[in-house]
Amino acid sequence: MTTATSTEKTTMPSHYSNLLELSRESNLIGGSMSILGWDQEVLMPEGGIEYRGRQLALLAKLEHQMSTSTAFADALAECEADGDLVDDPTSPSAVNLRELRWSLDRRTKLPAELVEEEAKLSSEGMHAWKNARAESDFSAFAPSLKKIVDMLRRKAECYGWAEGGEPWDALAEDYEKGCTAAWVETIFTPLRDRLQGLLDDIMGASTSPSNAFNEIELPVDQQKAFVRVIAERFGFEFNRGRLDESTHPFCSGSHCNDIRMTTRFHVANVNDALGSTMHETGHGLYEQGLLTEHIGTPMGHAVSLGIHESQSRMWENQVGRSESFWTWCHPLLAEHFGSAVSSLSFDDVYGGANIVRPDFIRVEADESTYNMHIMIRFELERAIMSGDLDVEDIPEAWNSKYREYLGIEVPDDARGCLQDIHWSMTSMGYFPTYTLGNLYCAQFFEKAMADHPGLHEEFAKGEFSTLLSWLRTNIHEHGQRYRAAELCEVVTGASLNADPLLRHLEGKLRPLYGV
Amino acid sequence: MTTATSTEKTTMPSHYSNLLELSRESNLIGGSMSILGWDQEVLMPEGGIEYRGRQLALLAKLEHQMSTSTAFADALAECEADGDLVDDPTSPSAVNLRELRWSLDRRTKLPAELVEEEAKLSSEGMHAWKNARAESDFSAFAPSLKKIVDMLRRKAECYGWAEGGEPWDALAEDYEKGCTAAWVETIFTPLRDRLQGLLDDIMGASTSPSNAFNEIELPVDQQKAFVRVIAERFGFEFNRGRLDESTHPFCSGSHCNDIRMTTRFHVANVNDALGSTMHETGHGLYEQGLLTEHIGTPMGHAVSLGIHESQSRMWENQVGRSESFWTWCHPLLAEHFGSAVSSLSFDDVYGGANIVRPDFIRVEADESTYNMHIMIRFELERAIMSGDLDVEDIPEAWNSKYREYLGIEVPDDARGCLQDIHWSMTSMGYFPTYTLGNLYCAQFFEKAMADHPGLHEEFAKGEFSTLLSWLRTNIHEHGQRYRAAELCEVVTGASLNADPLLRHLEGKLRPLYGV
Repeated sequence: MTTATSTEKTTMPSHYSNLLELSRESNLIGGSMSILGWDQEVLMPEGGIEYRGRQLALLAKLEHQMSTSTAFADALAECEADGDLVDDPTSPSAVNLRELRWSLDRRTKLPAELVEEEAKLSSEGMHAWKNARAESDFSAFAPSLKKIVDMLRRKAECYGWAEGGEPWDALAEDYEKGCTAAWVETIFTPLRDRLQGLLDDIMGASTSPSNAFNEIELPVDQQKAFVRVIAERFGFEFNRGRLDESTHPFCSGSHCNDIRMTTRFHVANVNDALGSTMHETGHGLYEQGLLTEHIGTPMGHAVSLGIHESQSRMWENQVGRSESFWTWCHPLLAEHFGSAVSSLSFDDVYGGANIVRPDFIRVEADESTYNMHIMIRFELERAIMSGDLDVEDIPEAWNSKYREYLGIEVPDDARGCLQDIHWSMTSMGYFPTYTLGNLYCAQFFEKAMADHPGLHEEFAKGEFSTLLSWLRTNIHEHGQRYRAAELCEVVTGASLNADPLLRHLEGKLRPLYGV
Repeated sequence: MTTATSTEKTTMPSHYSNLLELSRESNLIGGSMSILGWDQEVLMPEGGIEYRGRQLALLAKLEHQMSTSTAFADALAECEADGDLVDDPTSPSAVNLRELRWSLDRRTKLPAELVEEEAKLSSEGMHAWKNARAESDFSAFAPSLKKIVDMLRRKAECYGWAEGGEPWDALAEDYEKGCTAAWVETIFTPLRDRLQGLLDDIMGASTSPSNAFNEIELPVDQQKAFVRVIAERFGFEFNRGRLDESTHPFCSGSHCNDIRMTTRFHVANVNDALGSTMHETGHGLYEQGLLTEHIGTPMGHAVSLGIHESQSRMWENQVGRSESFWTWCHPLLAEHFGSAVSSLSFDDVYGGANIVRPDFIRVEADESTYNMHIMIRFELERAIMSGDLDVEDIPEAWNSKYREYLGIEVPDDARGCLQDIHWSMTSMGYFPTYTLGNLYCAQFFEKAMADHPGLHEEFAKGEFSTLLSWLRTNIHEHGQRYRAAELCEVVTGASLNADPLLRHLEGKLRPLYGV
């Protein structure tokens, strides 16, 4: 790829380099916004909040103007007329033109009034949701949500969807290009069926891993040093990124050479800090693996939220919850925490990282049941968008699905349909990317294992560079060369399907629970 | 002032509110740049440097476009034609129009080619200066400096200067509006004469304070907690600002409610961390004392570098090197550092903060000799700009002045005329603001003492709110209502002069050195 790009550089026609320059310029604003957003979450004093909102709003306006300007549209059209640039559909120029066109069309499809209406409803919606959640009363949020759904239907109409599709598809494209509800359903249905069988068996098991590891108190300073070592060992380059703290862990940054990850710490839950760090490190490694030469263009951008999540889940779950990882990490715990962890056996730590427990709250769910939470939300939002489910009937539908899929009684709206902020901020179509991430992840990892059968032996020695190299070459360096579903086929030779994830979960959990 | 502003708000004509909105909008970009610049110095990973430079350059371009746009110029002209807005020359509207006009004219006086040439020469100059300093060879920097001086002369011609003035004046206006070399000379000359006498006496003294305090090793973590307490006690509000670390301490921020200060730590020099913190806290308190209602307009902006420095020096020197401050702080040292400081007497700490020692390096100079370093630079750059001193003759002139004013032999260029970065980055006219700051500071503090004779008794109890309130009312809240020299007269009833600073230094140092 380096060679191809070098060639491209020397022969790049001026209209194409002009287009890339415009793309990079609006990306400079986007990167600035990203750092300012990070600053706001991580360390900005509270006095800065109002003005920061205004700064970001102005920068967003400028970025929108730049990326939808006549100059940009003309430059893009001129390039599109140049057959040499699109000859090879996987060449950087063809990819950049394809994705810049997609973004420009997408950005110009919405009337300004709808954009403003959405911003207003989102702000009102989050406010109403917070109050409703505090009172655990969905009916206090329902009027706002109705307005949001009505607006989202009109938004979906503006975007449009493919023949045979449905409104939900139009919204999902913001997060996962080419994703349709029908396609998601074909993958989620077999996943749910077999997962339910697995969960039933686990719930009926006579044995269960010890929870001791999740209850032990460890000083935050020691936890900080510990998780930093893990991130570094996985391959995160601290000369091109940072790891800080925030209430809700996230990964952002300006570009591949300045990536900002966060995690969080609780004295009595090192597993939370560790899991969050491994997860965000997966995101961070993806971002650091994009190529410097493509910064500010689609070729230097991650594919989709689902593929991004496949990277975070791989380091969190396929690596970080594996027997081999804990073979290496168990003694490392003693190095960092001394006698405080001397009572923990290997079974305590490996088992403690893999406890399955159906519960109400998505963000606290384990690796298996998490997917049930996602499937419930997907089914509901699809029905809401299609008009099959009225807003006021959400609590009943929600609780009924939790009963059916997870066998639990939701005690109240706060721990039920009011637990997530997403819908209140007008994000519908987002949730499935989490489980798509798990699915892509498992399928990618099976292929990586097929290419390098000794991966787990390496993990057991604290070596992760073979996996990282594989991810760099097969996924990261491609940028947006392929759309998500196509990338999966190119990399694994098969369409996305539920089997790898089920094999992964069953292969690990059945022995652990003796079922 | 609050009342006046409230009235103004309710009766503000739309052309004036439109102008303020445009001013605030370009300030939103400026504030964003400030945070990104802070991030770069304090915590950005090294990989971010190239792209950060491009982000800042683009934002600077956008900010320049906004603040020199036809829309802005027209809005300003429309307001200037409205007599009601400028009736009272110290009203917020008159002040804003006066200073926005000054900035617009200043920004539009330079041809674009000169701005580009300056950016290029600055970049080249800093590079050449770094190499020359590493080799301690001024001749390696001289060709770059010649080009810079030539460009600065043309720049000064573009700006112009008042009748009877000189090119240096035109450049100094960037840092200190209305400042001329002739005016600076009238104040610096008596200062130098009496200061030289004081220094001669001190150098001949038979006694000197102990240096023990400056050599003691104290853990950096404890130093951090200690200096934060000092900043907080002085009145810095941490819900509207931060204190972090950087190689060179500075104070910046986005606006009065988000101020970012830095300091630095060395195990063996708590006085450096303390002095830097008190200095930057002085800057920070000034910024936090500007009024929220005026953010993004000249009324919400500091007067000048000299006045800014008067605030930093006041907390560093008039407060932080006083007997009364150390009366409170000496026992506080023991609280923070325990037995490590038990050998230090009051005389050790108070004396140790006030050691006078003529030396080569400006940034390491004490409160008294610092002014000599500044006067030497002022005299040289004035002569360079007037053509009275050729660039190649700088080392000789530099060394000769150090011999004359400080009685020391400069050993080499690195510790001589190559020690400062300023000229290499095209900043001429900047240096005097440091000593102007000391002068304003002393004159302000004498007036504060006249208004509140019990200030030192309060310092001795760790109480600083009376001084801060006085500064808020007399200086901070005015924003740019007055230019520096006028502010001095309004506040102290007298023109800026050297007597208060000399009284301050002599009153403290003669007893300490028994001269």
